[in-house]
Amino acid sequence: MRNEKAKLIEEYINELKTIKYEINNNSKKRFLSSVSYLYTLNNGSIIPREKVLKNNSDGSAIIIAPYIKETKEFLVVIEPRVFTSLGVGVSFPAGYIEEGETPIEAAKRELKEETGYEAKKIIHLDSFYQDEGISAAYNHSFLALDSEKKSEQKLDENEIIRYITLTYEELLELEKQGIISGANTKLTLARIKDYKEYLK
Amino acid sequence: MRNEKAKLIEEYINELKTIKYEINNNSKKRFLSSVSYLYTLNNGSIIPREKVLKNNSDGSAIIIAPYIKETKEFLVVIEPRVFTSLGVGVSFPAGYIEEGETPIEAAKRELKEETGYEAKKIIHLDSFYQDEGISAAYNHSFLALDSEKKSEQKLDENEIIRYITLTYEELLELEKQGIISGANTKLTLARIKDYKEYLK
Repeated sequence: MRNEKAKLIEEYINELKTIKYEINNNSKKRFLSSVSYLYTLNNGSIIPREKVLKNNSDGSAIIIAPYIKETKEFLVVIEPRVFTSLGVGVSFPAGYIEEGETPIEAAKRELKEETGYEAKKIIHLDSFYQDEGISAAYNHSFLALDSEKKSEQKLDENEIIRYITLTYEELLELEKQGIISGANTKLTLARIKDYKEYLK
Repeated sequence: MRNEKAKLIEEYINELKTIKYEINNNSKKRFLSSVSYLYTLNNGSIIPREKVLKNNSDGSAIIIAPYIKETKEFLVVIEPRVFTSLGVGVSFPAGYIEEGETPIEAAKRELKEETGYEAKKIIHLDSFYQDEGISAAYNHSFLALDSEKKSEQKLDENEIIRYITLTYEELLELEKQGIISGANTKLTLARIKDYKEYLK
C-alpha cells in the first residue's frame, strides 16, 4: 500500500467513525419493513416465510467497479458502515435500482452521483441474491472501463461518501485487513480476477 | 453435468417449487424486525440508520462447503428459496450462529442437522458482512474436509432440505445456469478456487 493512500484512508476512517449512537423512537418514516407470507409448495407443504423490504421495494442493487485506465487504479468509496465493527467501510460504488431503471442505468447513475465519474464501457460481472432467505434483492455487479471524473458528487441527504483511487493489489490488502468486508464488494473483487489485463 | 445428477436436481426443483402464496396477516411471532438509530460520527454529522434483526439478533451465519474425499464431490443442499425467480435454490449448507456458539461449532451443527454429515477438518475460508448497509450480520465461510454421512437429517419445523453430491465443475455449471444464485454460496465457491487440489 502506498503511504499517502494508507494515510488518506486512515483520515477518512477517523472522520467517519461512530462516536455515539442512540435508538431513535421518533423516526416517522421507516426505511425497513417486512411482509409475512404462507407459501404452498408443489409437494403440498405449506411454509411461512418473511421478506424484508427497503423503502417498500425488494431493494435490488448494483455494484460498479470503476477502472481508471491512465493510472491502472480502481475507484472505491469510503462511507460510514455503522453496523460493522470498524464503523466505516471501503467498497465499490453501489446503490439501489430505482423504478423503471435498468441495472446498467442504475450503475451509471450511482457512479456519477457518488463520485462524479462517468464510464465509457460497462461489463456485466455477475448477478446474485444478497440474502436469499429473507429478501428478493437481486444484485448486479459491473466493471466500468475508462472511468473519468466529469462532475461533482451529488449525494442524497444522510449520505456521506469519500472516494479514493487504489490499485487492485491495494484493494486486496484492504480486504485482508478487513476494511473491505462487505459481500457485494468482495464478490465483485473476486470476479475482477477474470479480467487479468487490469490487475497489473 | 452427469445425467443422473441433472435429473435429481430437476426432480427436487419440481418438488419444492412454489405453486401459490398468500400474505399471512395472522402470523403471531415475527422473525424479522428492525430498529431505528441515530449515529453521531466523529466529524459531527448525525445520520439515521436502520438495522434488520432476525429472531431479535443480528443473524450472523455460517456457510460450510463439505468435501467428500472418496468421490471428490461437494455436498450441497436444495431447498425452497421462495423469493428467488426459480423458487428453489442450491447452496452450501448454512445457518445462523446460535447464542454462545463459535462459528465453527455452528458450522458443524448445521452440517449435521441439514445433512447428517460430519467433517474431520474445517478450514476457514472467509468472513464478510452480508448486507452492511442494513445489517450487522457477519458471516463465516468454511471448507470441511473428509465429510462423511453419520446420521439422519434433523430439521427445524418449516425446513425442507434435500441434499446431493456434485463435483466442483458441476457446481460451477449450476452457478452459470443461475440455480446457484445466492451471495453466500457464490463467494464460498470463489474462495474454494484457492484450494486447487479439490477442483479436479
